[in-house]
Amino acid sequence: MKGAHAPGALAGAEDQAFAEALFKRLAELTGDGIGITRASYGPGESRALDLIEGEARACGLAVERDAGANLVVTLPGSQPDLPWIACGSHLDSVPQGGNFDGGAGVVAGFTILRSFARQGFKPRRTIKLFALRGEESARFGKAYMGSSALFGRLTAADLEVHSADTGETLAACMRAVGADVERIARGEPLIDRTRLAAWVELHIEQGPVLTARKLSIGIVTGIRGNVRHRVVQCLGEAGHSGAVPRWLRRDAVFATAELITHLDRHWRTLQERGRDIVVTVGVMGTDPREHAIARVPGAVSFSFEVRSQSKDTLEAFYDLFLSECQLIGEDRGVEFKLDRRVESAPAVMDADWVARLKRQAEKLGLPGEEIPSGAGHDAAVFANAGVPSAMIFVRNENGSHNPAEAMAIEDFIAGVRLMQAAIQEAAQ
Amino acid sequence: MKGAHAPGALAGAEDQAFAEALFKRLAELTGDGIGITRASYGPGESRALDLIEGEARACGLAVERDAGANLVVTLPGSQPDLPWIACGSHLDSVPQGGNFDGGAGVVAGFTILRSFARQGFKPRRTIKLFALRGEESARFGKAYMGSSALFGRLTAADLEVHSADTGETLAACMRAVGADVERIARGEPLIDRTRLAAWVELHIEQGPVLTARKLSIGIVTGIRGNVRHRVVQCLGEAGHSGAVPRWLRRDAVFATAELITHLDRHWRTLQERGRDIVVTVGVMGTDPREHAIARVPGAVSFSFEVRSQSKDTLEAFYDLFLSECQLIGEDRGVEFKLDRRVESAPAVMDADWVARLKRQAEKLGLPGEEIPSGAGHDAAVFANAGVPSAMIFVRNENGSHNPAEAMAIEDFIAGVRLMQAAIQEAAQ
Repeated sequence: MKGAHAPGALAGAEDQAFAEALFKRLAELTGDGIGITRASYGPGESRALDLIEGEARACGLAVERDAGANLVVTLPGSQPDLPWIACGSHLDSVPQGGNFDGGAGVVAGFTILRSFARQGFKPRRTIKLFALRGEESARFGKAYMGSSALFGRLTAADLEVHSADTGETLAACMRAVGADVERIARGEPLIDRTRLAAWVELHIEQGPVLTARKLSIGIVTGIRGNVRHRVVQCLGEAGHSGAVPRWLRRDAVFATAELITHLDRHWRTLQERGRDIVVTVGVMGTDPREHAIARVPGAVSFSFEVRSQSKDTLEAFYDLFLSECQLIGEDRGVEFKLDRRVESAPAVMDADWVARLKRQAEKLGLPGEEIPSGAGHDAAVFANAGVPSAMIFVRNENGSHNPAEAMAIEDFIAGVRLMQAAIQEAAQ
Repeated sequence: MKGAHAPGALAGAEDQAFAEALFKRLAELTGDGIGITRASYGPGESRALDLIEGEARACGLAVERDAGANLVVTLPGSQPDLPWIACGSHLDSVPQGGNFDGGAGVVAGFTILRSFARQGFKPRRTIKLFALRGEESARFGKAYMGSSALFGRLTAADLEVHSADTGETLAACMRAVGADVERIARGEPLIDRTRLAAWVELHIEQGPVLTARKLSIGIVTGIRGNVRHRVVQCLGEAGHSGAVPRWLRRDAVFATAELITHLDRHWRTLQERGRDIVVTVGVMGTDPREHAIARVPGAVSFSFEVRSQSKDTLEAFYDLFLSECQLIGEDRGVEFKLDRRVESAPAVMDADWVARLKRQAEKLGLPGEEIPSGAGHDAAVFANAGVPSAMIFVRNENGSHNPAEAMAIEDFIAGVRLMQAAIQEAAQ
């Protein structure tokens, strides 16, 4: 039997040129003048899905949109009853973001399916590429919306959140691109988890570790979870800055500055004691309707985020946060009001897949270093749903969530080759 | 000679009813639906000047607009060669502010001139009421524009500042209401300082001290100065919140929070050591164009203000501010960029006038308590130009720079009577 499924060649120069051209068209289709904007369940994201769908059709691959409005491209296996292998990533981006965050994983999966199809390689297991929607939290304050919906884990409350840009609900935006919102709201899985043998995702590294260590790629061992509040309000009392004495001030800016400074110190202490933790206040501002240099600010809004690979560390820091809000609130006569808590669980990558990737990397003469993921990825949702999951990171300078992302196409193809070799091994 | 200038009666019930009605018309003319908006060198301010001018004409008082476009109402004295007495306040307001901040001083001066005119009282010295423009800093980031122009202290650089609302320059807005901008830009005084015997200003207290001490009025001893920056920018580097490790972060929010927390502690320490000082960050915010919960914030803007009755304390705190910007900037890899420094000097009220007001208050059975002014006033500009200056505060609940200002008309008339008695004594 095995001879009938002889491995095809791995992606080469032609595939590299094709991928490079595809990235260029993706950027042209979804550029915003400064960076890339493919809003979750918005028009840029849809244009990106349409581009990949058209290319897949041109290669003779089967295409469909699932009930979550994600694009699914299928290379059928010779034994379709076997659990199949899924790969891919997301096609949405933050506003004024980069072209490769998410996009690289979809182009990688597509390059592999196209390479197999062009060679006439037919694996035993079916391989499916998912171009997912809605991974970024910028628009709805919640990440992994597309992959969560696949497993029935996007709640009715999640669906009622209003977007930061147009104010529409997530339900309305999903329905507009064709998702079956009623099914999703009922918590019905859109995919049969038991039929999934694996999830494999290539992604640019969103930090500087691979660049600093001069490694083209890395093999991911685990993914941080997070706890977030999209909007925390600090409510004090406005007044004339020169005329309200210090002991009567209820100053929302001083209170919020003290809170953030305390959070920063707790973060430093926990990290120095060896805990994995990152704390961020990405959005903050006084109320523009009451802006005056000479007015004691009566209200400040800000976002809160803590990330860790440990659920215990997340909860411990969250308790500290609540306690600081209470203490500083009492001390300064202000109140901190929290909106809905949103969380994503940390995840561990599958040990067998990590071993397979390391073995294949060695064969191909590629780096096989293990690296934890600081940022969250759809792979965390697959892993926490019980699907053996794996991730390959590709070196990327200048971070992500900004237009200056820089991934070399040679590094990308190295990652694609490793991914292709591992999927080939697992699929046949 | 003295018998020819027998004092008239002080303002009474008829004057109180007249003033109350005048305040009501002022509020009707310049209400914005929520509070009062009389933008500096804008339409609401002009409507307020027109109202007082019309009333002054109706009383047979001489009216004119000076080269700074302020309204001047004159009660000529019998010895016009003697230096004259000026009184009044400003008619502009912050957006959605109150009716009495500034307005009370103009109505007080007008009530006194009207009372003298109706009685046929002719003092030896001429008395002039100034309804000044442009005292509030909300629109151009600079306070006392109208009074500064009188003394040739509004600079060409001040005139080029753009307004926070329409974006027009101060020069354009002043020219539009009839000011001689070329003369002002040359630093030419619009008034002969040596001909001015005094400046007397009634104003609502903008803090809670008189209310707390159950005093209808107070006598001001000094006025705080301030140093301000309208916009300080903290520039770091945006990045993905989960992927940039702590030691590589250049987080503008954490840096700004630490700076503000340090300023707050320095403020507390200096105050505990007996210094008069107030520090305010009234406006603060991340850049809305790059807003995302999961993005390390790369830029924050905020305003800076320090107030004190002591020039030394102002400069000492300002030096601390610069030093903290430098230290935190180096420590956290961010840069604090300051726009133009704007300052108002602290001022001391004239000792003879303070004594006169205390003496007259005692005669009238009114409170004569001394009170420093936390907020700035045009009287500071007159005092620093060498004009003997005096201020009376009237009790006011709920602070100012908001629509909830609350001055009782009985307290106002008490202040008017004290001011009238003191001016009468000085003018004859």
